[in-house]
Amino acid sequence: MASEYRSHPRWAFPISQVVADMPQTVPFVGPEEIQRARRRPFRARLGANESSFGPSPLAIAAMRDAASESWMYADPQSFDLRSALSKHHAIPIDQVMIGEGIDGLLGLAAKVAVSPSTTVVTSNGAYPTFNFHVAANGGRLVLVPFRDDREDLDALLEAAKREDASLIYVSNPNNPMGSVWRADVIAEFIARVPENILVLLDEAYADTAPAGVITPIDTLQPTNLIRFRTFSKAYGLAGARIGYAIAVPEVISLLDSIRNDYGINRVGLQGALAALDDQTYLLEVVEKISRARVRVGAIAADNGLVALPSATNFVAIDCGRDGAFAVRVMQEVLARDVFVRKPGAPGLDRCIRVSVGDDAALDIFAEVLAEALLAAA
Amino acid sequence: MASEYRSHPRWAFPISQVVADMPQTVPFVGPEEIQRARRRPFRARLGANESSFGPSPLAIAAMRDAASESWMYADPQSFDLRSALSKHHAIPIDQVMIGEGIDGLLGLAAKVAVSPSTTVVTSNGAYPTFNFHVAANGGRLVLVPFRDDREDLDALLEAAKREDASLIYVSNPNNPMGSVWRADVIAEFIARVPENILVLLDEAYADTAPAGVITPIDTLQPTNLIRFRTFSKAYGLAGARIGYAIAVPEVISLLDSIRNDYGINRVGLQGALAALDDQTYLLEVVEKISRARVRVGAIAADNGLVALPSATNFVAIDCGRDGAFAVRVMQEVLARDVFVRKPGAPGLDRCIRVSVGDDAALDIFAEVLAEALLAAA
Repeated sequence: MASEYRSHPRWAFPISQVVADMPQTVPFVGPEEIQRARRRPFRARLGANESSFGPSPLAIAAMRDAASESWMYADPQSFDLRSALSKHHAIPIDQVMIGEGIDGLLGLAAKVAVSPSTTVVTSNGAYPTFNFHVAANGGRLVLVPFRDDREDLDALLEAAKREDASLIYVSNPNNPMGSVWRADVIAEFIARVPENILVLLDEAYADTAPAGVITPIDTLQPTNLIRFRTFSKAYGLAGARIGYAIAVPEVISLLDSIRNDYGINRVGLQGALAALDDQTYLLEVVEKISRARVRVGAIAADNGLVALPSATNFVAIDCGRDGAFAVRVMQEVLARDVFVRKPGAPGLDRCIRVSVGDDAALDIFAEVLAEALLAAA
Repeated sequence: MASEYRSHPRWAFPISQVVADMPQTVPFVGPEEIQRARRRPFRARLGANESSFGPSPLAIAAMRDAASESWMYADPQSFDLRSALSKHHAIPIDQVMIGEGIDGLLGLAAKVAVSPSTTVVTSNGAYPTFNFHVAANGGRLVLVPFRDDREDLDALLEAAKREDASLIYVSNPNNPMGSVWRADVIAEFIARVPENILVLLDEAYADTAPAGVITPIDTLQPTNLIRFRTFSKAYGLAGARIGYAIAVPEVISLLDSIRNDYGINRVGLQGALAALDDQTYLLEVVEKISRARVRVGAIAADNGLVALPSATNFVAIDCGRDGAFAVRVMQEVLARDVFVRKPGAPGLDRCIRVSVGDDAALDIFAEVLAEALLAAA
């Protein structure tokens, strides 16, 4: 079995070949690391699709209350939050599990379904953290181009069949472009996927999507589907690391069998529970996000640029030229102390991606974008 | 490659054979689950080696303050905490990494060093969560019996050589018996391990150990050693899920390459930072834990039982008869609404394991133990 391992001059013990073969990159450089490198703080934090509107005040209160209980491990079953989600989505409790954000849950799904002989299909430019998890399990990635700034469902399915893939990753709404497919289109796509191919449907931005985009859960429970939701986006709890997966009980049970039993932090769990319970606040935030998207669109238009339609808490702004120009625009925005990111894949790379923020943050962005475009030109 | 996979009548997509082969057990059933089954709460929570003395008030204050910042992801580099730990232990920052508790870090170490062709040596009755991670990566476990209630270092090393193992797990102080090896014995053991065998040294209970037990970090940095520490025990932050690993930079870099980049929760990180900064409080708690261990010993003696010497925040009480009797004692204690656990391995199974608690909790335990022993007899 020697071929499974390699040793390294700096360590003599054998390590997994899959780990040895991992690319030495991270999916996203954090804003704090950029700040440390630049030796100055950002004035506005619009790069990680966090919600500067914050979580419900009730969630903050619940987390403050829970702080003094942090001497106790959280319930490893996350029973209270799973119960609440079960009621919220009207599904049995054994169809939902909690994870350390969607990132953690995608890691479990990859561990279950990806091995060195597995082929995985995703879109070129879609969520890189998923690709990281595929690499961490030695899978082969097949990347399908976006089409008209959307994930190309037909091409994804065709590639999966052609390449004998066992896994397809799809997001709706999509990151980094903010685009969507209608609920019935997604439902029809999933119905067309053979049952021996597992579909991971990333719905991180489900809560900000307009009506008709999110397929009702009760109409979509095939055995080969896992849906992913999170408290990191519209619920405003990115730092709490609480996401959840929805699937048939047998699939939940598979994910459950390999999770860290005591992986979820107690304060975050209480925050998520309170946030879920405050749907009034969620609706208010979704409305604020919607207005902020319009404002980002107006800022783009003021500068002669086009903002793409978005169903998420961010907006992709088409910088109107090639990828190299958009990189310069992003760099000039960063240089002016505003944290934004951009898509890197061909076709998408003409854009920068701006998370929506409160008025103060968008005022700064408006001021900075005009200067950045001048400097980049 | 069909042999790597199995499919299941309830799902048609292939899953990893390693996952398919996982035992369907959990390392520890949580107290909340027991409470739900019993439909009544525990009066005292003395089963999970949590610290009922709680974290530093400064840590609680820091967590309360951080709650409203939970809309932001934490710094994926955990730079501030790593800096503080680097100063605290007087080691370079690239020799320390943060994980979701020691559990999460053991998972990374297993992922790096365990594959289906790997043999791993640990003690029969040592931390079961580690064994879970070995199983989750398909490794073969070789279990070495404890000797005189301690992990048998010579036998572990001998087994590792005999079985061609690439990994040894050792804890000091030990869980579930609370026993220790002196620092020089551990140092000598590690020096004897060939460099092609990786040693995982679990020091979860380092902070409660008496002087002379914990090997100084600067004298013990071979390339084949990873040390694990946590804020879950003496620091009183079990619910925060913050642990750390110490190793040479090349090994940290291996673990780092497969971690969840945004896995650490923001509130917990702030709590750990403040807790580390309050060493005065830590010393006070360690003193309280020490006194509480004496009290548990006295409670045991009052009931004609012998408490084992402990360097941790729990005490193993020898129930004086066989494993079946000790199970009955534990069940009778549980039936009286006090949460305790017990070792299950032959030789160790004569004991129940009682986490130390504050006076109120130990008053309840004292009352309950006498009744439980009568009922079990």
